[in-house]
Amino acid sequence: MTDVQQDLDTYLEARKEVIDGAIARFLPGEDNFPPLLFRAMRYSVFAGGKRLRPILCIAAAEAVGGVMETVLPAACALELIHTYSLIHDDLPAMDNDDYRRGMLTSHKVFGDAVAILAGDALLTEAFHLLSAKELTDRFPPENALTVIREVSEAAGCFGMVGGQVVDIMSEGKRVDLSTLHDIHTRKTGAMIRASVRTGAILAGAAAETLQSLTDYGDYVGLAFQITDDVLDVEGDREQLGKETGADQSRRKATFPALIGVEASREKTRELVAMALGAIDSLDEKADPLRWIAGFIGERKK
Amino acid sequence: MTDVQQDLDTYLEARKEVIDGAIARFLPGEDNFPPLLFRAMRYSVFAGGKRLRPILCIAAAEAVGGVMETVLPAACALELIHTYSLIHDDLPAMDNDDYRRGMLTSHKVFGDAVAILAGDALLTEAFHLLSAKELTDRFPPENALTVIREVSEAAGCFGMVGGQVVDIMSEGKRVDLSTLHDIHTRKTGAMIRASVRTGAILAGAAAETLQSLTDYGDYVGLAFQITDDVLDVEGDREQLGKETGADQSRRKATFPALIGVEASREKTRELVAMALGAIDSLDEKADPLRWIAGFIGERKK
Repeated sequence: MTDVQQDLDTYLEARKEVIDGAIARFLPGEDNFPPLLFRAMRYSVFAGGKRLRPILCIAAAEAVGGVMETVLPAACALELIHTYSLIHDDLPAMDNDDYRRGMLTSHKVFGDAVAILAGDALLTEAFHLLSAKELTDRFPPENALTVIREVSEAAGCFGMVGGQVVDIMSEGKRVDLSTLHDIHTRKTGAMIRASVRTGAILAGAAAETLQSLTDYGDYVGLAFQITDDVLDVEGDREQLGKETGADQSRRKATFPALIGVEASREKTRELVAMALGAIDSLDEKADPLRWIAGFIGERKK
Repeated sequence: MTDVQQDLDTYLEARKEVIDGAIARFLPGEDNFPPLLFRAMRYSVFAGGKRLRPILCIAAAEAVGGVMETVLPAACALELIHTYSLIHDDLPAMDNDDYRRGMLTSHKVFGDAVAILAGDALLTEAFHLLSAKELTDRFPPENALTVIREVSEAAGCFGMVGGQVVDIMSEGKRVDLSTLHDIHTRKTGAMIRASVRTGAILAGAAAETLQSLTDYGDYVGLAFQITDDVLDVEGDREQLGKETGADQSRRKATFPALIGVEASREKTRELVAMALGAIDSLDEKADPLRWIAGFIGERKK
């Protein structure tokens, strides 16, 4: 492990801790009624996860001079949306996955009905956080509204949900590279882009900087998904906490399946380089974004 | 049919037409990709429905001097949330209903996966509409943020979703009146209250008036749910477009089951009187709210 790698790990671990603490504070506790629902919401949110989206949101805010604490509710909201999407994706009606990150999926623990509703509640709670006074009192209200507009667009029919429908419809079919690109862009890319933009918009990024950060978000988003595909083929089951080869057995289109593992790795390297290039003009406050891009290129889980 | 009844029917019909037109305009069309998702979203939204929540939102706005057109995106957002909740409630994992309003339910037409995702998309689209420039440019941004905060609270774990979990957990169990009251308040009441408040807040209601309208919303919300329970026992299958007696066969707690049909009707009459009393001090601009309260007391479907 190099020193840079170790610094990055320390950085990511520290951020994850802050974010986990904030989510624990923002999410209603299990002492609420009915406890089952609140337990299910917390179970999936705290079933692991890299907190990539909140980390990107915070790093983007800091890159333009913002302060971590002020954007935390928004950062956490992004993670709630991510978690809801995993709960619904794992349902028997969809991917029918029993495990995620080494733990039983929500519906295996709480049943389908409560899993669906816990997902619904997390999605709804995300918008409650994005409109929370704790957030909106600290920024111009127009910025908060812009973020809600962008996040809802990224998460909805033109973004994540639409991508999931295309993904389901494509199972077992021959999918070309442009369709796969479309699936990835909508299913993962849109929310990663929105995460970067959320931090930047709240912190008041100028138009040109916002565009650089958006490009960065687009490149790391696709790079992240391609490494995800590669890890599904080559990753270590222990490290990933889920079965590998799942995409293949389900006949899902992936980058490795279409262009091969080596070309997928090369594509990731290119995208990481493009992400770094996009924020070339930003000063050292953007360094965490540079580290994250590197991490995405190299990640093993 | 009395003249008053006819006037009310004309009023409700005219409002429904405006709202349906607005939803058709605001909801993305089936020419978007993948058409299946957009078709599923539209299918359920246009599978009938009284548009009670948007009508209440508009009437509350008008009661305090607001203009219908300006609150339409918010009014429609409330209907999208209502529709999403019906799609998810009808799923095999929940109530497993094949018909709603005389039409096949979403999952019977599109399958469980697309039904779940169409619900997710409608919920997300609601927040997109609540933050749409078309709405937010017309009101102080703080008012728009307050509405998003309130609607997300009413729809989420402390409101509608929480109520649905309590409802599911109570099936087949002895439920007392206070638990039933809690289920109704959260599952239906919270969003009806939020509908009234949304219109009033956007239109800038003064604190005291907002409180009167909130009380009105609480009373009509509960009255609405009790008549729903009664109609499930006594209603006409043809008029309702769904099987009656469903609650009983599912051993769901209802007001008629706990206190009898006659006492339920009496309770409804009381609540309608209290709703009217709550807005007694408002001028004739609040008359539509008065008509709607009367309609809820008398409705046959």
